[in-house]
Amino acid sequence: MNDDAPDLAIRSATADDLPAVVAMLADDPLGASRESPEDLAPYVAAFKRLDEDPNQRLVVAVRGGRVVGTLQLTIIPGLSRKGATRSLVEGVRVHADERGSGLGTRFIEWAIEESRRENCTLVQLTSDASRTDAHRFYERLGFTASHVGFKLAL
Amino acid sequence: MNDDAPDLAIRSATADDLPAVVAMLADDPLGASRESPEDLAPYVAAFKRLDEDPNQRLVVAVRGGRVVGTLQLTIIPGLSRKGATRSLVEGVRVHADERGSGLGTRFIEWAIEESRRENCTLVQLTSDASRTDAHRFYERLGFTASHVGFKLAL
Repeated sequence: MNDDAPDLAIRSATADDLPAVVAMLADDPLGASRESPEDLAPYVAAFKRLDEDPNQRLVVAVRGGRVVGTLQLTIIPGLSRKGATRSLVEGVRVHADERGSGLGTRFIEWAIEESRRENCTLVQLTSDASRTDAHRFYERLGFTASHVGFKLAL
Repeated sequence: MNDDAPDLAIRSATADDLPAVVAMLADDPLGASRESPEDLAPYVAAFKRLDEDPNQRLVVAVRGGRVVGTLQLTIIPGLSRKGATRSLVEGVRVHADERGSGLGTRFIEWAIEESRRENCTLVQLTSDASRTDAHRFYERLGFTASHVGFKLAL
């Protein structure tokens, strides 16, 4: 990015952001086969559920009026670690035009800051084993690859 | 377990279960240094928050009137995968007396069944890299170790 690039803002997503957000979810090596940007109905229903849940933060990054990134943060109360609340980062996507702009770092810093505001003592996320660049990125930001992430499709 | 063992039931946890649940969280190679079974106050506060959150299921396994296991399931709406809802399993503990009894399998089967009832299309969890027996256990139950789990303590 050059010094003339408009400022980047991170704000809560609205229903109007959904076409841009879903396009980013689909513009991804793993997402391409999983998403349906031509049919937004399931995303509209899911957005409503996220929007009504006080433990969910769905945000977008906006530069020059254009949505260029998205991230979902879930606040998860729990008993373990002396009743610790943790947060979970999911669905991080950065528009192809913004790669290398520092937006990924800004996003994770935002997630950490928001987690602190919610008195979380732990931020966690999983990253597909094939995304080796992402793994180095999270380690640079202070995360430890201490766990194995298991998934079961229903 | 022999054939005379009382039946096992899985039910929602109540505040009265907290001493037994916290004792199990602490009776664990990793949990021993993280928990404070002598001071239940932080767990009582966390339990209240879990109990009021419709996307949280904190359950206990009970055999013969005694709490012998605990598990937390979080229902997480989201946009990715066509607006898929997923579930997250955390804080699985089985009392030392129950190891090898099949309770771990019963618990995960319960979590899968509950996730289906909530229309989740994915169940996920992370397991500390040091818990190699647990990894084989989850793979036997159909989970895939497809992800790397990152944590950042705040």
